[in-house]
Amino acid sequence: MIEMAKKTKLDKVMEVSIRRGFVFPTAEIYGGFAGVYDFGPIGSLLKEKLLKLWTDMFVKSEIDPPVFMVDGAVVLPFPVLKASGHVDHFVDPVVECKDCKEEVRADHLIEEETGQFVEGLDEMELTKIIRDNSINCPSCGGELADVKVFNLMLGTHVGSKRSIAYMRPETAQIMFLDFKRTATSMRQKLPFGIAQIGKSMRNEVSPRKGLIRLREFGQMEIEMFVNPDRINEHPGFEEKENIKLRLLTREEQKKEDTKILEIIAKEAYEKEILPNKFMAYYLALETLFYTKVGIPWEKFRFRHMLPEETPHYSGGNWDLEIELEGGVIEIVGNAYRRDYDLGNHGKHSGVDLSIEDNGKRLIAHVVEPSFGVERSIYCVLEHCFRDKGYDRDWVWFQFPRAIAPIDVEVYPLMKKDGLDTYAWEMYKELKISGFNVLYDDRGSIGRRYARADEIGCPFCITCDYETLREDTVTIRDRDTMNQIRVKAKEVIDILGKLFKEEIKFEEAGELIS
Amino acid sequence: MIEMAKKTKLDKVMEVSIRRGFVFPTAEIYGGFAGVYDFGPIGSLLKEKLLKLWTDMFVKSEIDPPVFMVDGAVVLPFPVLKASGHVDHFVDPVVECKDCKEEVRADHLIEEETGQFVEGLDEMELTKIIRDNSINCPSCGGELADVKVFNLMLGTHVGSKRSIAYMRPETAQIMFLDFKRTATSMRQKLPFGIAQIGKSMRNEVSPRKGLIRLREFGQMEIEMFVNPDRINEHPGFEEKENIKLRLLTREEQKKEDTKILEIIAKEAYEKEILPNKFMAYYLALETLFYTKVGIPWEKFRFRHMLPEETPHYSGGNWDLEIELEGGVIEIVGNAYRRDYDLGNHGKHSGVDLSIEDNGKRLIAHVVEPSFGVERSIYCVLEHCFRDKGYDRDWVWFQFPRAIAPIDVEVYPLMKKDGLDTYAWEMYKELKISGFNVLYDDRGSIGRRYARADEIGCPFCITCDYETLREDTVTIRDRDTMNQIRVKAKEVIDILGKLFKEEIKFEEAGELIS
Repeated sequence: MIEMAKKTKLDKVMEVSIRRGFVFPTAEIYGGFAGVYDFGPIGSLLKEKLLKLWTDMFVKSEIDPPVFMVDGAVVLPFPVLKASGHVDHFVDPVVECKDCKEEVRADHLIEEETGQFVEGLDEMELTKIIRDNSINCPSCGGELADVKVFNLMLGTHVGSKRSIAYMRPETAQIMFLDFKRTATSMRQKLPFGIAQIGKSMRNEVSPRKGLIRLREFGQMEIEMFVNPDRINEHPGFEEKENIKLRLLTREEQKKEDTKILEIIAKEAYEKEILPNKFMAYYLALETLFYTKVGIPWEKFRFRHMLPEETPHYSGGNWDLEIELEGGVIEIVGNAYRRDYDLGNHGKHSGVDLSIEDNGKRLIAHVVEPSFGVERSIYCVLEHCFRDKGYDRDWVWFQFPRAIAPIDVEVYPLMKKDGLDTYAWEMYKELKISGFNVLYDDRGSIGRRYARADEIGCPFCITCDYETLREDTVTIRDRDTMNQIRVKAKEVIDILGKLFKEEIKFEEAGELIS
Repeated sequence: MIEMAKKTKLDKVMEVSIRRGFVFPTAEIYGGFAGVYDFGPIGSLLKEKLLKLWTDMFVKSEIDPPVFMVDGAVVLPFPVLKASGHVDHFVDPVVECKDCKEEVRADHLIEEETGQFVEGLDEMELTKIIRDNSINCPSCGGELADVKVFNLMLGTHVGSKRSIAYMRPETAQIMFLDFKRTATSMRQKLPFGIAQIGKSMRNEVSPRKGLIRLREFGQMEIEMFVNPDRINEHPGFEEKENIKLRLLTREEQKKEDTKILEIIAKEAYEKEILPNKFMAYYLALETLFYTKVGIPWEKFRFRHMLPEETPHYSGGNWDLEIELEGGVIEIVGNAYRRDYDLGNHGKHSGVDLSIEDNGKRLIAHVVEPSFGVERSIYCVLEHCFRDKGYDRDWVWFQFPRAIAPIDVEVYPLMKKDGLDTYAWEMYKELKISGFNVLYDDRGSIGRRYARADEIGCPFCITCDYETLREDTVTIRDRDTMNQIRVKAKEVIDILGKLFKEEIKFEEAGELIS
């Protein structure tokens, strides 16, 4: 008997995401472009809401220390990325098959074949392991060539003199370059943060299917600049100290049966499990953020990176990892980078990047939370995805209301008798009031509800014959499929309260089914 | 007597913009990167507000036809830009000096030296003009080499196979690539628009000082897809038809003493001065937008591009041009591109990009307004700039309230006696309410007002000893420097009304000076 290949959750999520306008493969009409996606009309709205929530939580509502947003260049000149270490060290080991010419990541291949963890080894050492273990091409079984390293940056030439430049591989360098100007122009003392949301590019050897490993991707990064002597003074920590974190310590990672440590931020800091108060603060805030966007608390944890995964200068790295059907993936890197970045740029540029604090000149230390935009969005999609048969005959997304791309859809029961005019006026009114609204007058109401569910729209409004008589409409709730009848003139007010979670759906009107 | 070089307005605007955190030269600590700027903390907020206003006006509040936002890749594969014509035709003519090796734009040089308009001529023709007119190097007077063409795209290589790709030179290609997916996923018929805000890169031969000609820049573009038989049916036109446009026709451009035609959109359309109703609609909407962001109506006009400036496929191009001290610059290009883009991509990709409308399959026509982000922001900065001596002893920006980067600043009169605690609590409250707020307790109140003026902050709140006794604070208005005293608990409400222009400042409280 032949077993049919089972569709993974990733397959299903990507299928509906492409069909319904969340993401489109870039240049699809030309056969696509590996590792690159566009956000379509629905995905752009989801991304907009997720980024707005992030900005509100990590930038705009941060009072002390303040966080400033900057918005810098994607193309950076050679000296910047030489100083940052990316020109010399931002490389992946690649090995080519002598027969079929396919190229694969040498480190991934060795890890899969031997279970050996080889991060940090050079091309000679990796080649030796391949030879010693007689590892062959995973595609055709052919003999493999020697391992080569491959820089992950996309290079280019700028100006008629063709100076070397690179697409930035991370947004962070802008914040280091702009550190001094930001401190001076804002008359700001330590500690303070600089944040940025923007694109980065990495020439991944084998980009993965879906939104997990892309060549062009969004990042939300913060560099928090701190006096190292005062890295355990954070005026805002108390407000977040009781948030419970899920931690995976180094000790537990060595065990066969690893256990997650559930512990409040305050305790994790006091017991010195986390390197400093700023790190503890960000782990707490990230816990809040990801639960708000629809990732169940028990589905993510912070993993203490192992010594071999951690750069020599680091004072401790903790990655936020989210469980997916296909395995656990890193979503946020939290790194205590000490004075590595400002120290390096000061040395290479010859510009004094020290700052005065508490009567002493010093190089600020950096605590950096670095978020992946598409990865975060993919995790939201997968965790909010409800498969056909879960509770209805179609797939749907149970997005938290705050990040649902479309807030509400409006339907006339029939395209006649003035129902369409009524519904169209309501659609306009909602749009002018600032809601993300769609109007749909095609097919049965049931089909329209199903289509709204597919893009995770929380509420659908139907104008029926009672509407014309009584000036009332029905609102249907995505999650329960319950319907209430409300006065038309109260719709905007009720929706406002529902989105602010000030009232329960069933109490917002007369329950009709 | 030696005459001191007079500072231009551009010099002055850039000086305060860099000093106060609007923009920073990218990689300044490494000597900068010609033609590239970062937005600093204040500039990011200005950009955010300008983009939000644009999105509200051109995308979110557009009801019929609707406009959908997408957010696509910056790096595009070779076939896309081959099909679009950029690989072959997106070139600038450059000429190098045989002596000093400096390179300049050949067309600009000829125009400056001879007054001759040479757009569209090839390298042979340009070289001939240079020889015939004995034009030499503008820097050293040396002999010039032959003119060469220089592609303006930044190229790169993607994947281990090093496939050629380019940084997109405009955001528009994404909308053409995603046209079919957008129509299908949104179940949308013609007409509809696809909009995008994002970065583009062009390898300008000689980027200019300031934000006018950059190598990396933001664009806000809309591709409005229309059935050519119905290009004069626009359901939203009536609402905008009475907006008065300033037009510079081709006829007037030939005259010595050119006159601007002041005419309402409806009439410009009916008299067939503009090529269609969609073009007339966008010119009206752009007029609204630029007056809202602080460009006086009489300082900009739409110029009908001359035949030699217009691509062969175009059905008419009208550029929005704004007057600056240094001359007039193009801010928005409005182009009726007919079926050029979808036709080309259909042909090159082999994918059918036709769509059904009114019972007929057709290639949609495109009307494209294309806005420059940094240019728009520079024009706002220059037009809102008030020089030292204009009415006070410091420079300031008279931004419209809607786009002022910082809404309000909060000061304690003294850093003692509880004034600081009071002011700090008010600062927090305003921040939590969503205002962009700064707290400042350094220097005299007069100096703090001056600093707030420099970043165009509309209102400053001071907590003084009367505050402690009466729970009242003063609010100072940037434009008039008037002050009112209001109840502390009414501040948020009053500011809300002032920003919505619902009340006049002098009527919002007790006028005290």
